[in-house]
Amino acid sequence: MENPSEKLARAAKAAFEASQLIDSSTRVKALKIITDELASLKGEIEKANKLDLEAATIEVEAGRLSSSLVKRLDLFKGDKWDAMIQGVLDVSALPDPTGNVSYATELDDGLELYRVSCPIGVLLVIFEARPEVVVNIASLAIKSGNAAILKGGKESNNTTVLLAKAIRKALEKADLPLDYIQTVQTRDEVNSLLALDRYIDLVIPRGSNSLVKNIQNNTRIPVMGHADGLCHVYLDESAAAEKAVRIVLDSKMDYPAACNAAETLIVHQSLLNSLWPSVAKALLDQNIELLCDQPTLDALSTVTPAPANISTHVKPSSKESYETEHLSLTLSVVSVPSLQAAIDFINTHSSHHTESIVTESQQAASVFCRGVDSAGTFVNASTRFADGFRYGFGTEVGISTGRIHARGPVGLEGLVTYKYVMQSKAANGHIVGEFGSSDGKKKYKHQKISEARLPF
Amino acid sequence: MENPSEKLARAAKAAFEASQLIDSSTRVKALKIITDELASLKGEIEKANKLDLEAATIEVEAGRLSSSLVKRLDLFKGDKWDAMIQGVLDVSALPDPTGNVSYATELDDGLELYRVSCPIGVLLVIFEARPEVVVNIASLAIKSGNAAILKGGKESNNTTVLLAKAIRKALEKADLPLDYIQTVQTRDEVNSLLALDRYIDLVIPRGSNSLVKNIQNNTRIPVMGHADGLCHVYLDESAAAEKAVRIVLDSKMDYPAACNAAETLIVHQSLLNSLWPSVAKALLDQNIELLCDQPTLDALSTVTPAPANISTHVKPSSKESYETEHLSLTLSVVSVPSLQAAIDFINTHSSHHTESIVTESQQAASVFCRGVDSAGTFVNASTRFADGFRYGFGTEVGISTGRIHARGPVGLEGLVTYKYVMQSKAANGHIVGEFGSSDGKKKYKHQKISEARLPF
Repeated sequence: MENPSEKLARAAKAAFEASQLIDSSTRVKALKIITDELASLKGEIEKANKLDLEAATIEVEAGRLSSSLVKRLDLFKGDKWDAMIQGVLDVSALPDPTGNVSYATELDDGLELYRVSCPIGVLLVIFEARPEVVVNIASLAIKSGNAAILKGGKESNNTTVLLAKAIRKALEKADLPLDYIQTVQTRDEVNSLLALDRYIDLVIPRGSNSLVKNIQNNTRIPVMGHADGLCHVYLDESAAAEKAVRIVLDSKMDYPAACNAAETLIVHQSLLNSLWPSVAKALLDQNIELLCDQPTLDALSTVTPAPANISTHVKPSSKESYETEHLSLTLSVVSVPSLQAAIDFINTHSSHHTESIVTESQQAASVFCRGVDSAGTFVNASTRFADGFRYGFGTEVGISTGRIHARGPVGLEGLVTYKYVMQSKAANGHIVGEFGSSDGKKKYKHQKISEARLPF
Repeated sequence: MENPSEKLARAAKAAFEASQLIDSSTRVKALKIITDELASLKGEIEKANKLDLEAATIEVEAGRLSSSLVKRLDLFKGDKWDAMIQGVLDVSALPDPTGNVSYATELDDGLELYRVSCPIGVLLVIFEARPEVVVNIASLAIKSGNAAILKGGKESNNTTVLLAKAIRKALEKADLPLDYIQTVQTRDEVNSLLALDRYIDLVIPRGSNSLVKNIQNNTRIPVMGHADGLCHVYLDESAAAEKAVRIVLDSKMDYPAACNAAETLIVHQSLLNSLWPSVAKALLDQNIELLCDQPTLDALSTVTPAPANISTHVKPSSKESYETEHLSLTLSVVSVPSLQAAIDFINTHSSHHTESIVTESQQAASVFCRGVDSAGTFVNASTRFADGFRYGFGTEVGISTGRIHARGPVGLEGLVTYKYVMQSKAANGHIVGEFGSSDGKKKYKHQKISEARLPF
């Protein structure tokens, strides 16, 4: 007998298939209706969110939950509600990611081939505390034509159930299949869904390192996202002092808990007694803890006057220092003898997210960007720029450290694949047997067609 | 202690990383040298290939191997050797798939972002009898800048060892890392490699359904390829008779063992007593066995005069008929009441490879191409067109029925991913802290840049 998860996943696939015949303008209309439904349920949602917050507060007081989680749970803090609604409208206003032609060629007179973008199928999106992610992800899925199964954190259950209700009502009013967006509540359901590669095409985990790793290790379905964000800044031999200080500080401090914050600083050894002490001083002035290898440690010990907090904030590093995503005001530091050694260090220790070089040499910049095997390689710019909004995508589905399908910050484009559509306009259609290398056989033309959208 | 497979995979990754700093013209040069090395080893390779053939012939005579395998083993049959050499030269002449910019934007004055194509990393390619695949795949990997680990069939071992030797010599002469292309011989080695997702980025199995399924089920590394090629032709209500006959025959008969050959014919019920009997007659004239559902069977029983081989070649279908990739002169047949039913049948039974509709209705064509969830959806064209060379890619890495990364016939583009390269030209570099919504903060420009190649 079919288990409940299988029924749900099959329904999602059926909803996806049915939706392919619905015009994209209907999906955009549904997004507008979602904002209306959310508005009319706002009072109810506010009450439900209060219940979630109260329950979580009790857990925090009992020491079973972190207090930062409560902040993320609160859907009505500051402008969060309005930002969520605006987010849906923003997504609805983005260009349609489907129906775009990326390759088109005439194989023969009247035989046209188009590679056209289309939704992937069924997405399984797993996230943690923040309830508004249900609405974010639902709008991205609807906009791109994918069906989605969403699992939020159990702490936000009262809230997400109502958010899902608003979405479901909107789907109904827009004549979209009801199973297009479904939610599940338990980890057990997720575990069953992760086995259903027949129905589910892509898993997108958004949350902690352990959440993502656990999912990656337990499914054959492709997973898009990142577990670690272990980003590096490298100060090249030719690094300019002011740039170096600005970029290191911003990469570390702008938002230390973000995946694109720097965790390790790599210093060319020629800078040990020149630039390094001034960068260290700027970091120590901001109370950043430095975990240093022997050469960078030694260099600091001779600086006069010694920085005030050197005894409390400068410590020797260990092997683990360079494998740790601190996500806090701690920075690991290592020195290297050459640009090539810096590249090798990064390729060995990085999570392949984003790395930056500070340099005045265009040659070093070019070598760094080619040699570093990461989703983002930056020159004289903070690692914190690695972000879908900053890149100009209008929205961000997540950041991928995988190399397959999508890499780095992922916009709506990451939620589409393509199919090949071929049409013969010849009186008798087209068959392969007419083509060949021998006399009297047709040859392929491969004449480029310039069409941006599928013409039928 | 590190096991031998881990050492090999780590060496492949190191070779990949080192090769990133080598200009693509060097890789093209290596391809030319490969053809020279093969030419100078030709006599030796011919002897080795004879040994493989003799051993295989004994196995065939003992009934332990199929005779078709011997044909595939023979590297000197017809123009196979010359075609292999020409293939390397063809690949070397294709446009460089790396270094192409697919997105470029100026985030701020002097802050430029480029999305640029680059190799994926380390490929593990597993294939069966045909020894020339070693050379094909090595040239694709070298051209695209990926390292590769290759495993051929054990029957071709003597031949592939020498082919690999020629490749290795060429790498040496071209100053490319020697571990760039490595070969392994045993299934055990492959099994260990499939666990090494830390070093291996993509697995490409080329071979039988069972080979591919076995690999898909035993690795967390992304797999590109297809297990089944269960393709359908649908005769729509408005299908024209001559087109229908030509397309069905070509789809089934042009090369029945190919993955893009049709396995199931879907007939609109309005055609049961008109077009269907004439299509069936054309198929029976070619001695194609038809596995029919009750309506198509009944329709044939009333045809006068009855086709000569109707009693031997027309049989009732079972549920399994529609789940079987016949790869032979057998065709399953089913009737449906509507276009939508045909789409549903395909989406349920297809391997999502390639499907074709025969129709005179542009509306039906459009609905079919949108509603059928397969890598290829064709109108009035044989399913046999689904092929990288026919699509105009110059070469074919394989055909993917996955939806992630690459779908359908895959050319060199399927062997590249992209990275984001950002460069600040500002006097003090660029930091995120300068940007924001409040007064005095910078706003992102997102001004499109038109560069086809990375400018540095």
